[in-house]
Order: sequence, then structure tokens, then C-alpha cells
Amino acid sequence: MECQDYGLSRTGERENLNLNPLQRGGFLTEDARKALYEFSDGYSVCDYCAGRLDEIKKPGISNFLDDLANFIGVDHARTVHGAREGKFAVMHALCQPDDTIIIDGNAHYTTYLAAERNHLNMVEVSSNDYPEYRITPENFKETLDAQFDHGEDISLILLTHVDGDYGNLTDARAIGKIARHYGVPLLLNCAYSMGRLPVDARSLKADFVVGSGHKSMAASGPIGVLGLKDEWAEVVLKRSETHGVKEIEMLGCTSRGAPIATLMASLPYVIDRVEKWDDEVQKTRDFVEKMEKIGGIKQLGVKPKDHDLVRLETPVFDEIAEKHPRRGFFLYEDLKKRNIVGIKRGQTKWFKCSTYGFNQEQTDYIARSFAEIVEKYS
Amino acid sequence: MECQDYGLSRTGERENLNLNPLQRGGFLTEDARKALYEFSDGYSVCDYCAGRLDEIKKPGISNFLDDLANFIGVDHARTVHGAREGKFAVMHALCQPDDTIIIDGNAHYTTYLAAERNHLNMVEVSSNDYPEYRITPENFKETLDAQFDHGEDISLILLTHVDGDYGNLTDARAIGKIARHYGVPLLLNCAYSMGRLPVDARSLKADFVVGSGHKSMAASGPIGVLGLKDEWAEVVLKRSETHGVKEIEMLGCTSRGAPIATLMASLPYVIDRVEKWDDEVQKTRDFVEKMEKIGGIKQLGVKPKDHDLVRLETPVFDEIAEKHPRRGFFLYEDLKKRNIVGIKRGQTKWFKCSTYGFNQEQTDYIARSFAEIVEKYS
Repeated sequence: MECQDYGLSRTGERENLNLNPLQRGGFLTEDARKALYEFSDGYSVCDYCAGRLDEIKKPGISNFLDDLANFIGVDHARTVHGAREGKFAVMHALCQPDDTIIIDGNAHYTTYLAAERNHLNMVEVSSNDYPEYRITPENFKETLDAQFDHGEDISLILLTHVDGDYGNLTDARAIGKIARHYGVPLLLNCAYSMGRLPVDARSLKADFVVGSGHKSMAASGPIGVLGLKDEWAEVVLKRSETHGVKEIEMLGCTSRGAPIATLMASLPYVIDRVEKWDDEVQKTRDFVEKMEKIGGIKQLGVKPKDHDLVRLETPVFDEIAEKHPRRGFFLYEDLKKRNIVGIKRGQTKWFKCSTYGFNQEQTDYIARSFAEIVEKYS
Repeated sequence: MECQDYGLSRTGERENLNLNPLQRGGFLTEDARKALYEFSDGYSVCDYCAGRLDEIKKPGISNFLDDLANFIGVDHARTVHGAREGKFAVMHALCQPDDTIIIDGNAHYTTYLAAERNHLNMVEVSSNDYPEYRITPENFKETLDAQFDHGEDISLILLTHVDGDYGNLTDARAIGKIARHYGVPLLLNCAYSMGRLPVDARSLKADFVVGSGHKSMAASGPIGVLGLKDEWAEVVLKRSETHGVKEIEMLGCTSRGAPIATLMASLPYVIDRVEKWDDEVQKTRDFVEKMEKIGGIKQLGVKPKDHDLVRLETPVFDEIAEKHPRRGFFLYEDLKKRNIVGIKRGQTKWFKCSTYGFNQEQTDYIARSFAEIVEKYS
């Protein structure tokens, strides 16, 4: 049989300035590229496995997991296929079907999917309204109180550390304290934080953290991180009754291939880069300031920014689109001419973007490009 | 903080003749290496996603899944993280906790783990005894009859198409017919077959098939294939109630990164190579014949071989080890001097090996090397 042409190249996204927040934290380091080459074939990390992925010494997965646990402030670290798979595993180990969990109103869709797959009831903690969409500890407390007043048990609280819609950084430590006060375990979804900014599960009072290698830790997808406190190890890392060394929720082994090698290779770099987080935040704030000088553009979410993911309302581009022969596609195409990609084709009313990892010159060029496009059509 | 040295190189396994059956089917093609480079960064396949991984047009994931479904004879194909994750998803969608499933006695440990994670009861169909360990349709029928006689419901039959201990190819079609006769859905674990030999789910009467990209389809791990008949789509590919386009068992999306690009790039090559399966089997039989001429070496499992995975009893190496100053390590070390790797360090009583993908000259060299090592010490 003949296969179709799958168009397996990505030159445009690799070689231009890519503003997609989903992509900015996942660019490989030079060392990760080398590791990808070394471990590209099949089951490459399993050459010297004696039955447990997390205990492999060559390559040093076992040492790596110790360093990783240290880095994120947990007692045990495992790699999973991504943050969502980590959330599913924790819910699956802790909850029974029909249990109730509390989630924040800015939770990623995969939080809902993981809960649905586990047949759990979800109670949402609302954010405040437009334009902030802020999640507050007070709202968390109210929701918990209301549940307990109704005599409902809560099996788990899931808090999105930084959400993917507005890039709001939640006060995880305050919510962690509330969770601990009520005796409910807290799972912190750090897909947009771990690897970008310092995350210490202990100081945030989180029982569990999940992170995403491809989103924020300079790794090839799919790979994620699950970290937990020792008191949950027996539940979440429970071993098989039939194959005594294998952990059930991990289905024995998880990351059996190249992505874990890239995560390992990037860890030293990631540990360094989170220390420069304040610079990233400042750069983002400056960028937002420049963008908001373009008539009518407005940043949504909490101000000033505490994260690089920026959501902008951009009526000015929508107005141009109405009269432009290429309609909504003009913005994508005008940006591409300037070697800028990552804003969805056709999107002009609003968009999400990030300058994470760009230097100041690149960031200024990007802001100037948006301004020039507006000028061009006015 | 300082990271330890993780030793991220794999020169020995990449550059020598690697006999590990786990590795032989996962070596990347030239095209897959290029795809790996193109899609190495983070969430690389998600640039043009409109909400569904399986419907992405650039790269052509949607076209690829059509071709893949066609190749393996199913109505719907999805990528999963590996065969085990595919098995878990099918069990999770079809079964309730405490349901009973039937598995074959040569099932991979991950079949047990997937069932345990789903809280299922397993009834094993025994293989016959040493040295064949053959799984027969008759034993399957007997086990099913016994269950139904006891009034037990069976939710699923899981058959290992080719097992990883003996490399026995089961008569899937005969067992598929039995399953259909009793009205029990059949899940065929093709981790060691799909991508090595022709697998057509329709003719094998399988409701579900799972395959492994890193084990047998020339792809970077972790990646697997789940194929199913249309009648199961509503159950296994059920959509979320909160996020209507997302499939619950897939947690929305599965293979969000480089491995799927390698699987896509290798598919045309894999489609070709399964046509040459008879040559691989003949090469394996010749290899076994040569190995059995070395005093005392005996092939376990069904004879003659119908698969490249060979398990050999090798008392002759064990006897050498008893007197050798390096003890059991001598075999690994003597092979390595001859640029042969993939037999576990210290193992001499028996081992598994495969010559899949080696040319005749390489295969002859490998057999001769074992003979020369025996001669050297006798």
C-alpha cells in the first residue's frame, strides 16, 4: 500500500520567532539535542534495566530522579508522559468513582478529562470576573466550607499553579495552607511553572506536583514529572501483587525512550534558568506596556504580569481584518513576513503570546512589529 | 544546585551488533531520524492543532492514522504511549472493577499491571509445559467453558500475539473465532508483531489490537498504536461531557511530541518490511540451527521458530562461567570484544536474542562468534 505525504518538516516554526506560549518553554538545549541523537532508537534507555525504569543507572535515571526531587522539593519523583497523565495517576490512586474533588475555575481541560476518566465529581472554585479572572484563597476557602457544610467529603484539591488561558500565577502557598488546614491533599498543576520559575512543593504545602517537560522543561514531548510527599508513596507508588517490583500507577515503566534523555540533559540548564525568572517577568511587563501603547490593545488576567503567558484583547487587529482582502489571515501573514510565528492563523480579536526565552532585542523587535503592522493599515 | 553526571551516551549499543530482541525492531529509519530532528522541540506536533491531535493536518497526523488503520485492518487507529497504555485504555473503557478477563499464560507483565490498575480479576489460560510453552486455542476454549460453567461473565479476552519470553506466535485467528463464538471481545497484544510481520485485525477476528512503536515499528519511544473496530468506538473513544471534542480515554491527546513524527516517517518503510517477514523467519531458523550445533544449546519455545525472538538454554556457557576468573561476565565481555552486545551482563544459563534486521553476513558472524567463544574455552 502507498502512504500519503505527511509533510514532516517544521522549518517555519523552528527558524522563526515563535510566540506560542505552548512552545516557548520546550525548546531543547544543545545538550538535549545531543541526548536525543544518542537515545533516538526505540527503547533506548532500557539497555541496562534490571526491572525498574526509575532505578536505571546507565543512563543515570536514578540519580536524575534524586536531583529532580531535590529541585522541586518532593520526597519522590517519577517521570510520566505529561502533566495530564500525572494528574490522572494521582486521582486514580487516591479517589474512588463518584468521589468529589475541588478544582479551580481556570483549570486546564486535561484536569477535567482526568477527573472524568476517573468518574469523579468536580466542584469549581470560581475566578473573579473579566478582565482579571483571578483565583483567590478566599474563594477556595468558601467553596471548601460550603462543601463541608453540606456534609460532602472532598478527596483532593487540584490547583492550577499558572493557568494556560491568562497566565495568572495563583497564591499556591496560601491555598496549600488552607488545604492542609482542612486535611485535604493538594495536587498542584505546574505545567506552566515547573522549569520556568522556582517551584518548591514543600514551601507551597503541596502534597503532589505535576510538571510538563515539553511545555516548560526544555524537553521533547511527551514527558512529564510527578512529585509527591513520602506519606503518599504507598498509595500512589503501590507495587503490583503479581510483579512485585513494578509500580501499578506507572504501568511498570513510563518514559521508555528519547524524551526522558532530553529532560535529563536539560535539567542542569533548567535549574539555572529558573533563577533568572525575575528577568523574564520584567521583560514580559515591559512587552505588555509596549503592546498596550498600541491603540485599544489590553492585557487580560492579573496585572502586572507574574508570568510570561500573556493574553491580549486586540480589537485593533479585528478592525483591520474587516476591511483587509485577506481578512483575519492578514495578521498571521504580516507577522510571518517579519519572521514571527505562533499566533494562530485567522485570529485577530485576541491572542495569547509569550516572549519567554527571547532576548531584549528580539522582544523589542516583536513589539515593534505589531506596532508597525497597525501603522501600515491606519 | 549541582546535578550529577547522568552518562547520556549510548555509543556501545548504537555502534555494535545489538542482539536484544527489545531493541531490534525499534531502530530508526533515516527518514525517522530526520523527523526526530524536525520535531525535537517540546510540543512540536501541536503547531496547527485545532483541538484534536488525531485530526492535525500539518504534519499529516490525520492522513497517517488513516493509512495506519488501513495497514493493520481496523476502523479506527490512535497513537498511545505504548502497548501497555493501549491495553489499559481498552480495559478501562470496557470493564468495571471486579470484572473478570481471560489472559494467556505468556502475557507480558504489563497486561497484569493494566488489569491490576483497573482492579480486574484475571484468569490465565495455561501454556503447555517445558520446552514449548505453547498457547493453544483448545486451552482457550476449555478455560472459557469452565468460566461459563461457573456462571462467570467474561468482559474481555487478552491474547499475546507473540510473547516476549519465548517468541511464540499464537494462532490468533483460531482464538479470535472462539472469542467471537462466545461473544467476548478480543484484544490482541501485537507489541512484538505489528511492524515486524503482517497483522490484519479483521482477518484475526480481533476487536482491538495494540502495537508498540519503539519495540517493533522503527520509532522513538514512547509510542504505541491502538486499533479498534467501529462498534467499539463509542465506548473506547467516548468524548468528554465538559470538552466535547476531546476523547476521555486519550486524556484529550496522547503523543504530543517527537515520537509520533518518527512513527509517521517510518510507516512506509514498516509497511514494506513486513512483506519480507518470511525471510526473517528463515534467517532465524538458520541461526537457531547453527546455535544448536554448539554443544548443549537448546532453543526453547515452539519449533521451528515463527518469530525472530529466540530463547536459548545455554548450559555450555554456564559451565565455562563456573571456572572463568570473570565468572558469568565472561560471555558479555567476550562478545563485546567481537562488537556484539545485547546479552545481559552476567547471564550465561540462558538468554534471549534476535537477529531481526541483520543481514546474512552479520547473522553468520554472530553465530560463529558464539561457537568460537565455546571453542576458546574447551
